[in-house]
Amino acid sequence: MAQNMRAAVVRQFRTPLAIEEVEVPTPQPGQILVKYEATGVCHTDLHAANGDWPVKPSPPFIPGHEGVGYVSAVGAGVKRVKEGDRVGVPWLHTACGYCPYCRTGWETLCASQSNTGYSVNGTFAEFGLADPEFVGYLPDALDFGPAAPVLCAGVTVYKGLRETEVRPGEWVAISGVGGLGHMAVQYAKAMGMNVVAADIFDEKLSLAKRLGADVTINGKAKDAIEQVQKATNGGVHGALVTAVSPAAMEQAFGFLRSRGTMALVGLPPGMISLPVFETVLKRITVRGSIVGTRQDLEESLQFAAEGKVTPYFSWESLESINDIFQRMEAGKIDGRIVMRLR
Amino acid sequence: MAQNMRAAVVRQFRTPLAIEEVEVPTPQPGQILVKYEATGVCHTDLHAANGDWPVKPSPPFIPGHEGVGYVSAVGAGVKRVKEGDRVGVPWLHTACGYCPYCRTGWETLCASQSNTGYSVNGTFAEFGLADPEFVGYLPDALDFGPAAPVLCAGVTVYKGLRETEVRPGEWVAISGVGGLGHMAVQYAKAMGMNVVAADIFDEKLSLAKRLGADVTINGKAKDAIEQVQKATNGGVHGALVTAVSPAAMEQAFGFLRSRGTMALVGLPPGMISLPVFETVLKRITVRGSIVGTRQDLEESLQFAAEGKVTPYFSWESLESINDIFQRMEAGKIDGRIVMRLR
Amino acid sequence: MAQNMRAAVVRQFRTPLAIEEVEVPTPQPGQILVKYEATGVCHTDLHAANGDWPVKPSPPFIPGHEGVGYVSAVGAGVKRVKEGDRVGVPWLHTACGYCPYCRTGWETLCASQSNTGYSVNGTFAEFGLADPEFVGYLPDALDFGPAAPVLCAGVTVYKGLRETEVRPGEWVAISGVGGLGHMAVQYAKAMGMNVVAADIFDEKLSLAKRLGADVTINGKAKDAIEQVQKATNGGVHGALVTAVSPAAMEQAFGFLRSRGTMALVGLPPGMISLPVFETVLKRITVRGSIVGTRQDLEESLQFAAEGKVTPYFSWESLESINDIFQRMEAGKIDGRIVMRLR
Amino acid sequence: MAQNMRAAVVRQFRTPLAIEEVEVPTPQPGQILVKYEATGVCHTDLHAANGDWPVKPSPPFIPGHEGVGYVSAVGAGVKRVKEGDRVGVPWLHTACGYCPYCRTGWETLCASQSNTGYSVNGTFAEFGLADPEFVGYLPDALDFGPAAPVLCAGVTVYKGLRETEVRPGEWVAISGVGGLGHMAVQYAKAMGMNVVAADIFDEKLSLAKRLGADVTINGKAKDAIEQVQKATNGGVHGALVTAVSPAAMEQAFGFLRSRGTMALVGLPPGMISLPVFETVLKRITVRGSIVGTRQDLEESLQFAAEGKVTPYFSWESLESINDIFQRMEAGKIDGRIVMRLR
Repeated sequence: MAQNMRAAVVRQFRTPLAIEEVEVPTPQPGQILVKYEATGVCHTDLHAANGDWPVKPSPPFIPGHEGVGYVSAVGAGVKRVKEGDRVGVPWLHTACGYCPYCRTGWETLCASQSNTGYSVNGTFAEFGLADPEFVGYLPDALDFGPAAPVLCAGVTVYKGLRETEVRPGEWVAISGVGGLGHMAVQYAKAMGMNVVAADIFDEKLSLAKRLGADVTINGKAKDAIEQVQKATNGGVHGALVTAVSPAAMEQAFGFLRSRGTMALVGLPPGMISLPVFETVLKRITVRGSIVGTRQDLEESLQFAAEGKVTPYFSWESLESINDIFQRMEAGKIDGRIVMRLR
Repeated sequence: MAQNMRAAVVRQFRTPLAIEEVEVPTPQPGQILVKYEATGVCHTDLHAANGDWPVKPSPPFIPGHEGVGYVSAVGAGVKRVKEGDRVGVPWLHTACGYCPYCRTGWETLCASQSNTGYSVNGTFAEFGLADPEFVGYLPDALDFGPAAPVLCAGVTVYKGLRETEVRPGEWVAISGVGGLGHMAVQYAKAMGMNVVAADIFDEKLSLAKRLGADVTINGKAKDAIEQVQKATNGGVHGALVTAVSPAAMEQAFGFLRSRGTMALVGLPPGMISLPVFETVLKRITVRGSIVGTRQDLEESLQFAAEGKVTPYFSWESLESINDIFQRMEAGKIDGRIVMRLR
Repeated sequence: MAQNMRAAVVRQFRTPLAIEEVEVPTPQPGQILVKYEATGVCHTDLHAANGDWPVKPSPPFIPGHEGVGYVSAVGAGVKRVKEGDRVGVPWLHTACGYCPYCRTGWETLCASQSNTGYSVNGTFAEFGLADPEFVGYLPDALDFGPAAPVLCAGVTVYKGLRETEVRPGEWVAISGVGGLGHMAVQYAKAMGMNVVAADIFDEKLSLAKRLGADVTINGKAKDAIEQVQKATNGGVHGALVTAVSPAAMEQAFGFLRSRGTMALVGLPPGMISLPVFETVLKRITVRGSIVGTRQDLEESLQFAAEGKVTPYFSWESLESINDIFQRMEAGKIDGRIVMRLR
Repeated sequence: MAQNMRAAVVRQFRTPLAIEEVEVPTPQPGQILVKYEATGVCHTDLHAANGDWPVKPSPPFIPGHEGVGYVSAVGAGVKRVKEGDRVGVPWLHTACGYCPYCRTGWETLCASQSNTGYSVNGTFAEFGLADPEFVGYLPDALDFGPAAPVLCAGVTVYKGLRETEVRPGEWVAISGVGGLGHMAVQYAKAMGMNVVAADIFDEKLSLAKRLGADVTINGKAKDAIEQVQKATNGGVHGALVTAVSPAAMEQAFGFLRSRGTMALVGLPPGMISLPVFETVLKRITVRGSIVGTRQDLEESLQFAAEGKVTPYFSWESLESINDIFQRMEAGKIDGRIVMRLR
């Protein structure tokens, strides 16, 4: 096994990451070592590197939580995977396994969870440790490149769509057709939903159309809400808001028909304001949704493996990470970026 | 049949109601005439009389939507009830019967509904018309007095509790122990829930305790949220907010554990602000709930008939209505007021 | 309006239907008259004409409950439809509107329901009465021919699929690829399910394949259950049994994985036997499902209008009804037969 | 720590158990050793000792799966419990933790589970090994004696009641008021249900009445079904069958109203026969339910700790086990037997 590996390390918040030689870790009992082939880059990684959130990671650390590769070593007592298995390492690194959330299939809410690329080292590296019970199995039919964005972007929108409780044949609005939203459109169609895609850029709407959206709406239109209400014969049954602006959230609220559900998956700072009168009279449900469980992850990978969902992504190198972060902050990234690690 | 009847009539918004002699209406095909024995007085009646809401009733009109009495005449084609049946007339006067909401048991969301004491004449009168398919059947074991507040206050909190999705054995917080909240505590206990009651008046908390609340919290306490989190071993599974202040709503949000649901049943003007970060990370659900369906009404009456829920109320006369409204505006009413109409 | 019309009338059980001139009925208040363009023929019509079931219709009567046409007259008080509207008349002719089932969107279980072509005259005629609140609206994009089989076969399997509680991306088995099953395969695919189709005739399996089934199984194979278990990685999440043989039901039970649900939609006489041990240890759910509600009907028509479901059917004349029944009893009908009424 | 311990050992199927001195086992990494204070005796233990079921345990082995006691040693890596904690050891000894069932809170369906007192040694002993993530935490307020029967009988009926999907205020029938049923009556009442208790012995019905049953029915009455239908205004919403006779199951089917659900928790050999016609027309659901999950276990213990459920049981000694089994086979045990192990 290699003794050293390349990794992108956050040495200090809000400073460029260092591409360094770091020692390859050794799996402890119950752990595995994954040899990464690739990793997606997520907005959360940027927040981690900037120390943006209330509970911060501790530099130095390696970000990244959309890692895909081969199991290269297994610690004592590991049963689920074996060397050579193809796996993906997600945000939810591990959880306690026995709290009320873990024992009911809601381990994403476990108070004792650790998070890949945040509280433990992540996937911007040639190797990394993982909990074999929390990795995603990569179906044979799914290549590493398109698998990477499923690990976070994909599972997040898949779970968010489920949380809208929209049934096949009903209408869902996807607000924001970026890295998350363009996958959401595809998951929604594969789940039998009728889709309204909303964005403020027409090229994003064209993309949504190509991906199967039944209706597209430019959110800057003054009558965007009226357009949606009309196109869907009274409003959508659910809305998934991938855009992080409060304005987008409030507009999505207006897209809903009575008894509709809005799911939020972004983590902008600040507050969302809801009109109480409409919320009550129309029996609106607003719900937060955070990544997805292990089951959601397997299901979201399966949709991709069956060719029903294909992320738009471009290959870059690990060395580009600081440049990628700059473009991300400037809002200049289309689809998703995957860094090649071999 | 009597030709005239006494009624409390709104002639002009924000002026005292007139106690007048009014002609007894005649049931048309599909309608019934109810001879009222009593009617509850609800905050919504005050809003109606003041023209507070965006869509206003048209004076002159008779408010009231917690009416109970006997069927005294039936129009052509009526099958469900017969003369002499004991019924209650609720806010949801009638609905179309065939829209997507009506055909799925969500007639409370029907866009073509009419509302008793608002868009059609209400129950502050000796007689009134009703749709036999929308009245509540009063079980024999339930007297008129305690039945009246169930017609709106009772069914509203019963439905709201259901909308929290709290299961028997789990914790629910009831925020506000007034006309609605004191019934909510009883419904929650009868539904097997463990109950936290929160109010800012200690005497309301004493009442809640007598009604079965397991834990009581004064909402003015600086550490109210911490107290609730501790008493419930990590927060409540659901919260029903009957208080209409945004502050109470936001405090109730803090009572929730991860995956908790907050149901709002009041109709204050203005906005509720939710922190997006906590909503997403803790997978919180916020949901509006408006009165209850016909099925909810029958169920909420049954709980009362079985003695599991007993509203606190005091008898007054129809002639006291203006005085009652004054006390209501001043927040000086304990429990519920029922006006005797015979 | 025509004074007389052609109709196929059951004069006596188990004797050929008479094609007669019958008086066109007049809609009473709350009713409509439908001028039929076409009607599907369902196995239930044969049972009706034979008086097979415990509660029998009373000859003379007109069978048929997949009628499609134009509203040609409306009785007093009708609001939902107007002359010229395109509607479909289903098995559930009308229901009381206020019992616990009607008020919760389960009017299919109303004890006071009447049934088209059974307790009231049906659709094997040029005209017929209907309850406007129980007809299905035919979307503009849906022709009469393909609409007819949706009225009973389509909505029945759509509802049955929903009752399996299979989610998009999970596996469902469709047992029997006849008049119902070939539509079930299409609905299941449109609902995002992965589909196993089982039949004992290879040509039915070929049809299923063309309609999108992911896996096909000949039920006569000794190892049919093992094949399904293997192809679906442990068994299907749900099974819809359209075949009416007990053997098919018991085989479908074997297709299920733990926690699977089997929905039955056929009405064979006799009993189904379930092994208690497996039912308990594997937490199997077996559920009956009867036609579909008004909401199910609208949704099932919408899937057809969007081109996601297309019944296989052949046009015949009303005069062929006795011949059709003979072929039906001999099991010689492929897909569905629609009788042209103009 | 003691080197040897007393245990009741099955040396050969269908022969009396031997009370022997056996070596106290040593917890491996991830395991704990429990010093038992008491253990319940369940019908399943008798089946184990007789080798009644298709997949058999391998003698010699120690049966028992309602063990309660103190954690007396913890293996490496154990986090959830510590020495001295009061715990209960249930039938579900351990499960894989990562299969689709384990990761969705249905570990009771894990194909890799092991079972206490069956595939691993059980609780008829002074000490035993356990998986700390699968034991139940005993609330302080709950004594060992009444806790023991909750570990299997209690959690099984609690889960079974949940599986009927009966809501508070609705009717449930409990068929069989024995060791399981007498607890089911109490759980059902604590969950807000209205309860019909059915048994063929009047003294069991008297017990049910004392425990809160609203209606009691002797199953031998010719009109038992009519009585239930009448007392519940049309049939129960759900039925929990704890009796293991097919006749009881089929009678419970008759108790149901349309849309009712019957949950089976017993494991008799043989088949249950359902009339297809009624199952479909009435939309009946029949569902197997096997013990309960870890979450169900914690909840069922909490109900007992709050005094809402109190098992009837009698203390006996470990040495009485063969006598207990004899009485069990003869159907002579009332309530539940708990063997004292200290």
